[in-house]
Parts: sequence; structure tokens; C-alpha cells
Amino acid sequence: MGEKILLAHGSGSRLSHDLIDRILAPPLNNPILSRMDDSAVFDLSGKIAFTTDSYVVSPIFFPGGDIGRLAVCGTVNDISMSGARPLYISLALIIEEGLELEDLRRVVESIAETAAEAGVIIVTGDTKVVNRGKADRLFINTAGIGLIEGEADISGSNARPGDRIILSGGIGEHGMAVMSKREGLQFNLPITSDCAPLNHLTAAMLAASRRIHSLRDPTRGGLASTLNEFARQSGVGITIEEAKIPVHDGVRGACELLGLDPLYIANEGKLVAVVDPGDADIVLVMKTRIGSSRIVDMPAGEILPRIC
Amino acid sequence: MGEKILLAHGSGSRLSHDLIDRILAPPLNNPILSRMDDSAVFDLSGKIAFTTDSYVVSPIFFPGGDIGRLAVCGTVNDISMSGARPLYISLALIIEEGLELEDLRRVVESIAETAAEAGVIIVTGDTKVVNRGKADRLFINTAGIGLIEGEADISGSNARPGDRIILSGGIGEHGMAVMSKREGLQFNLPITSDCAPLNHLTAAMLAASRRIHSLRDPTRGGLASTLNEFARQSGVGITIEEAKIPVHDGVRGACELLGLDPLYIANEGKLVAVVDPGDADIVLVMKTRIGSSRIVDMPAGEILPRIC
Repeated sequence: MGEKILLAHGSGSRLSHDLIDRILAPPLNNPILSRMDDSAVFDLSGKIAFTTDSYVVSPIFFPGGDIGRLAVCGTVNDISMSGARPLYISLALIIEEGLELEDLRRVVESIAETAAEAGVIIVTGDTKVVNRGKADRLFINTAGIGLIEGEADISGSNARPGDRIILSGGIGEHGMAVMSKREGLQFNLPITSDCAPLNHLTAAMLAASRRIHSLRDPTRGGLASTLNEFARQSGVGITIEEAKIPVHDGVRGACELLGLDPLYIANEGKLVAVVDPGDADIVLVMKTRIGSSRIVDMPAGEILPRIC
Repeated sequence: MGEKILLAHGSGSRLSHDLIDRILAPPLNNPILSRMDDSAVFDLSGKIAFTTDSYVVSPIFFPGGDIGRLAVCGTVNDISMSGARPLYISLALIIEEGLELEDLRRVVESIAETAAEAGVIIVTGDTKVVNRGKADRLFINTAGIGLIEGEADISGSNARPGDRIILSGGIGEHGMAVMSKREGLQFNLPITSDCAPLNHLTAAMLAASRRIHSLRDPTRGGLASTLNEFARQSGVGITIEEAKIPVHDGVRGACELLGLDPLYIANEGKLVAVVDPGDADIVLVMKTRIGSSRIVDMPAGEILPRIC
């Protein structure tokens, strides 16, 4: 039996400080974090992007990632979708009493690795522990700050008639990987979460084009929700050609088996860009496979529980 | 029976958007939030303070406040304790399925009122819903960004021998108010949480003195933990005179009854300042009431469960 998290690890007591000193601080350490004041302090000037997300994924470890990697990628990606370069991340843990310390250590190490991969640092944090049965092992919140360089004015409300839609890869992999792990499903083709930081990709795209109007990573609600959000925010209609949307064979098979539509399944390492037609090198003009129109509506309810 | 939160309110679906449009956005609305992109975007230049905290207090409504007021004050105060002027706050909700929509509405309105009181705005947010039994009604995370103006260099590591310690008021009120509500305890003297934003106070203090070395709000672990943190970070010893620490009669009585020490009970509207002796108009030189030395140690374990 390994060591477990106790309520006192979250009480501001000596045990809290031990947890920080032994498990949390060493992998994440940097000069800003190590001051250990109530706030991180750094110099920053310009047009700032600021975002937050909580991560409540169950299970906390899944093929292709874990809740820690997800918590860094999700917030790095939200910042990147504003055309910003992500820099500083906050990390707040809500831990259920009884979590194995070893599991927490693995998650924190994954956070450190993913932050290094994305080129961001964790500068401030918080740890709370709640009684057994009052959370689901581990919830993570990250907030992040990025800097918008250059002339980028990226918004879901900037899509214009005639723009092209670019999708960076196959859809539905994260949601189906989590679901298969969660429900103990076995498929012929293994499905791995696409969870990855997208900031290096957006930086390259923004360097290549000044006419990217909208960027978004299609997480909860999938590609369908993202396109609906663009349509709603910009007051435009969007036509898609379903056959041109890449879907990994494993995801397609699993979706067919379970009666799910990959358009509504979460992604954590893909982006959708709305680009001026003159700048759209790779364009996804999507029309329904059967040639007639199909309304890709907002999902009306729950698709997959807690995949983010 | 009022309307309740469903899992689908957190799934990125139409219901999620309805929740934002009906409950979350109207009281909090401002031009930055209303863009509804993945990140808030604003201009900011200078020395930035950035902090985060999760709030898991149970019960979510208590005498003198609620989890929403707490979530704004806590983060506003952490920013203020860096000598910064708090500006922008993020708001992330983790809601347990089944929470009454009316309770959520009350919390969000309290957030809006407290933000207005502190002069900050909520610029970005996130909502997750987890299954019944996987959270405790409502958890809130806020992160915040502030601007350090002037020459302030405030840190727990800046306390120096000879400095004076200033405490802004009576201790233990928040922790005892939450505990009495939680445990259904009745005391002769009602105890009300001191939960309040401290940024206007710190701004006035920083305008009056350039020789404030350390600032901290003694939340979890109480005044004892804050003083220990200063001692540890600065490599100094701190002598306190217990009789001079203000304690509301109700708090003192309740603590005596329950065998608790007010030094270790959480506050949410008080601050401790370490000030150069030349600038310490109000100085709290604290020595133990009995005249001899007593070690005010870090609390060794759990004092009060989940009062923040």
C-alpha cells in the first residue's frame, strides 16, 4: 500500500508544505514559482490573452495522456487560439482524500513534461484536499497568460462569407480514447488521445498568414460545436463536406459501433482555422457525403461524460 | 422543486450555452467577457502579479458570505498581498449534478457584487458539471491578474530583524463562522465571516509607506501559519505578544468551548504586514500573555475542514 493523500495535506499545515516540497515543487521548479509568495510576479507588456479551464476527466490516466497533460495542453491551446504565445500557467489541484501519492507524482511529472514541450512555465499554484467521496480523485484547474505578438486579430466573430475552414487532423480521438478506457471497451484498432500542445503550430500558421480570422480547438462538443460557435458569433452559415473530414479508422469503427458521431466527439490536439480564401493553402470545403444539406446542430445534451 | 443542474449543462452543448446566457453572463457582463472567445484579450504593461486559488468551502452559504464572495476576495487579496492592484479575474466552476439553479444564480450574483466592490472584472470562465456524488455541490477556481505600480517589492522573504508586524483586525472570524454553520453550532454571540476584499486597504497602505516588506492574508492555517511562512522565507524569528492580538469575543468564546486556538483559524478579510520600524504607525509587537516564550508552530495537521 502506497502513501495516500490526507485531508491535512490541504490544510495549510506542515503536511501541506511537505507535499509542496516533496511532490509539487521539484518537477515544476523555476525562479518565479520558487519565491512561494501569494502571487507570481513577472514583467509583461502588450496585448495579453488570459484563459482558464478546469479538468475533471475520468479516468485520470488514459491512452495517450493523463489529466496533467490535458490540463497543460487545454490551457496552452486556448491561449494559442487567440493568436497568442502562451507563457505563464497557474496550477490548482483539488484532490480527493485517499488519492495515491504516487499517482499525484505521475500527474505532476506529466505536467512538467508537457509544460516543457509547450515552452511554458508553471508560476503559481494552489492545493485543496476534500473528504473522500466529495471529488473524483483529482480535479485540476489551469489558467494561463499569453502575449499576442504582431497584428493578429483572431476571434470566433471574425469569420466572413467566402472564408475557408482548415482542420489540422483527424477528429474524435481524445473523446473515444477516454471513453474506451473508462468503459473498459476493447477495439481492434487501439485509439490514443490526440492531447498535445498546439502553440508551435499556431505560431507557424500566424507567421505564414496575416489573414487567419478565427482559430479554435474543438474540445467539448467536438467539431460540430466549434463550427456552430463560429456561425453564431460571426453571423454566418458554414457548409461542410463530411467525407473530407479525416477520421481515424479506429475512431470511425468505434463510433459506428456505439452510435456516436465523430463530429461531436472531443479533441485535445486539433484546431480549426477560418482563413481568408486567398491564404487557404489547405482548405477543408466540407459538404455532406450524400450531396444534400444536413444541419450540423449544437449537441442537444450530453455526448460523453467528462472527457476534458 | 426548482430547476437543477444537469450533466448536459457542462457538456459544451446547447444547454451549456443556455446556462451561460441565462445565469452566468448577465450579472458578470463586460466588454472583454462578452467576446466569448477561448481567451480574454486586453492590453497590460508592467510588473504583473498572477495568482490562483480553488474554493471548496462547505457549506457554500455561511454567515457573512458565500463561496462566490470568497472566491473573488481570496484571489483579489492574494494579488493585493504582492503590492499589486487587482484587475482581471477568471472564474471556473465545477458543479455537482443536481445543484439548484437558484443557488448557482445567488452565487454568481454574489461574485458580481464582490467584483464590483473590489473594482475588478471577470474576463474569462469555464463551467464543468460532474456526476452526483463526484463533487460537493460547487467548487470554484479563480485566477487573477494585477499590476504592481510604483516601487513596491513585497515578499514573504523580505522580513528583516527589527521590522514591526501589523495585523489589520480580529482573527478567526471566517473559520469559526463557517464551522458554526457547518456543524449547526449556536453561540451566544453570532460570528460572521470577515470575508472582504483588501485591495483598497493595501493601496492606501502602499501609498502611505514605501517600507512595507511583506504582506499576507492569513487564510488557511491562520495567523500562526502566515508568521511561520514569513519566518521560513526570510530566515528570521518572530516574537508575538498574544494579548495584543484582537479576537472578537464570540470567536474567543467559541474557540475556548471547542478547544481551538484562534491563531490557527482562517481569516478572509485580514492582513498581516511586516513594516520597517520607522514606518510602523500601528505596530503589533506580540509577546505571549504569560510573559514567557511559546513556540507558535505550523499547524501539524487538519484544524478545520475546508473553510476556504
